[in-house]
Amino acid sequence: MKGLVILGSTGSIGRQTLDIVRAFPNEFNVVGLAAGLNVELLKEQIEEFRPRLVWCTSEQHRGLLPDGVTLTPMEEMVCQPDADLIMAATIGSAGLVPTVRALENKKPVALANKEVIIMAGGLVKSLAGPDGGTLLPVDSEPSAIWQCLRGEKEDVRRIIITASGGPFRTSPMEDMEKVTPEEALNHPTWKMGRKITVDSATLMNKAFEVIEARWLFDVPWDKIEVVVHPQSIVHSMVEFADGSVKAQLGPPDMRLPIQYSLFYPTRLPNQQIPRLDTGLSHSLTFQPLERERYPCFGMAVEAGKKGGTYPAVLSAADEVAVELFLQGRIGFMDIYRTIDRVLGDHTSSLGSSLDEILAADHWARVRAHEVAESLPAPTPVSRST
Amino acid sequence: MKGLVILGSTGSIGRQTLDIVRAFPNEFNVVGLAAGLNVELLKEQIEEFRPRLVWCTSEQHRGLLPDGVTLTPMEEMVCQPDADLIMAATIGSAGLVPTVRALENKKPVALANKEVIIMAGGLVKSLAGPDGGTLLPVDSEPSAIWQCLRGEKEDVRRIIITASGGPFRTSPMEDMEKVTPEEALNHPTWKMGRKITVDSATLMNKAFEVIEARWLFDVPWDKIEVVVHPQSIVHSMVEFADGSVKAQLGPPDMRLPIQYSLFYPTRLPNQQIPRLDTGLSHSLTFQPLERERYPCFGMAVEAGKKGGTYPAVLSAADEVAVELFLQGRIGFMDIYRTIDRVLGDHTSSLGSSLDEILAADHWARVRAHEVAESLPAPTPVSRST
Repeated sequence: MKGLVILGSTGSIGRQTLDIVRAFPNEFNVVGLAAGLNVELLKEQIEEFRPRLVWCTSEQHRGLLPDGVTLTPMEEMVCQPDADLIMAATIGSAGLVPTVRALENKKPVALANKEVIIMAGGLVKSLAGPDGGTLLPVDSEPSAIWQCLRGEKEDVRRIIITASGGPFRTSPMEDMEKVTPEEALNHPTWKMGRKITVDSATLMNKAFEVIEARWLFDVPWDKIEVVVHPQSIVHSMVEFADGSVKAQLGPPDMRLPIQYSLFYPTRLPNQQIPRLDTGLSHSLTFQPLERERYPCFGMAVEAGKKGGTYPAVLSAADEVAVELFLQGRIGFMDIYRTIDRVLGDHTSSLGSSLDEILAADHWARVRAHEVAESLPAPTPVSRST
Repeated sequence: MKGLVILGSTGSIGRQTLDIVRAFPNEFNVVGLAAGLNVELLKEQIEEFRPRLVWCTSEQHRGLLPDGVTLTPMEEMVCQPDADLIMAATIGSAGLVPTVRALENKKPVALANKEVIIMAGGLVKSLAGPDGGTLLPVDSEPSAIWQCLRGEKEDVRRIIITASGGPFRTSPMEDMEKVTPEEALNHPTWKMGRKITVDSATLMNKAFEVIEARWLFDVPWDKIEVVVHPQSIVHSMVEFADGSVKAQLGPPDMRLPIQYSLFYPTRLPNQQIPRLDTGLSHSLTFQPLERERYPCFGMAVEAGKKGGTYPAVLSAADEVAVELFLQGRIGFMDIYRTIDRVLGDHTSSLGSSLDEILAADHWARVRAHEVAESLPAPTPVSRST
């Protein structure tokens, strides 16, 4: 049995990871669970999976945990000898230090918390590989790319990442200022956590996937393309040297890529995972990305290309801006304005050590709050349905 | 340099194989070329590629070949020590004996002449593998499946073969009796030889691919599906145990699968091969196969499942019927009627040795002519455009 540590066990990916554990009761021993503030669910998970180690972010919530659990910070949890596999399903910067520690300790890390590789791509990548741990993609797009690359030897010619385009793909541009959190959270194809759902509406999430692909698969920027595919059935594609393109498909459901990362390279049947229904008619459409509609996309890819501590600043400013948007304190397009101003104000460190990244992350959070507060408050919008 | 023998060098696949040879002038030494009746083109090919060995079907045409070429029957050509790779791009039953001889002599055979594996799937498959030669798929659909299986270890759950549906996918059913050779030869997406183009209009070709997949990839019949995909961009798909589906895509162009078979497992850039253009919008549609529209499909798959010498009879009767249709001697739907009657009249041998297969092939040709002659002649149809 594989000793599994789940960071972010009460989030969307954490809960679905536990669905896979339930589907294969003889395969995993849940060694550790770490959550944020949802102690009620964490208590249920502790009851069901009996982990040896537990973490919960706030001291106040921690007080509500059952007696007898061993509180262990995430960075320590991932280094335990019986932690054979780490699922990093935390959000934002929370997973950075634990992921670095896990890789330093030569542990395989299933990485759903993509901000980690946005903030510290070079560092994380340098720790993965022959002398360190292994990075296993979990997100559906990098998982698709990873599956398409399976068994292929030559360099890729192009990675083609698909994007649903989010809920505002066809909205009139003038309505974008007035988008409400409720509308941004209504993703057309994927049911996901709140942060990533807003990142999908701005296409920040897609820029993150471009940056992630650059590091995970070691491809130059100009070989990564994004195409809009509103049905989210084709999860991504790879074009090889001879022009042949391979794609990975399936109904939009995260349990498949989660399971793939947990059992790689083995593929196991799991009745929970929905199948592509060829008894129905399907229409899969692909179209070029409308860049003006999604200013976050270009800005974020640029920050990724600049490197240094810019990507860490990008990720931190986005985390703050999305949270402020969800709280109704800034408008939807202010997410872009906030991050753009913070990036403009930043002077990158020369290096990108963990300390430099964490300092840039801290600086960007403070600055993002300042910038956001200086913006005019969004006008509450009432809409007819 | 690889010594290459091309059987059927003046046909569509043969000519495109020579395009690949031209694109990689340091990779191949053309050892042998065999053609049917197109001596003019064969002479040009001899001039350009200087093969050591040549064959041409008819004695009369053979007389037109340049002096100094060594006439060598295909079955001997494929056994030469300097024949490192055989491209079997003949049509119908012509490639059967040479392919069997090549595999017996442990040669790798790039198989475009799919009738060979229809006629003699079990035999050919038993000769390929560790103790014999290797079979390398050339057709776009099995090549797609082969590419999707690359690097995958587990059994497949489903093979999903795509079918364009041919030129009559949306024609009124009552018009099918009146289809002319010209209409049947007007394939919407692929430019191919005449026999395979008519087989694509009846969907006989797709049934052949089902039978081919069953043998090439050793999958049971109930794991092979066909879906209609009119754009011919997705060349086929494979579903794995975990529900993940991989697809291989590209513009419809045979040079890619031909090149893949010649260089496998290496993928090489070739500017001749068109690329998937992601700068354009694409709509890829998939729908269930309308079986009533294509009676040849179900009949042929049934013959494949029955085994014995039925598939050889199927292939031979189809070859005769298609030729008679192209000559205007029977109608389009008579292709089905002829083959159905011949199959109904056949009593399969118990075994399926090469002799039994060749005897069944001979019997079926004679019987198909008799059956076709007994059918009422098609009424010449004049159409307004």
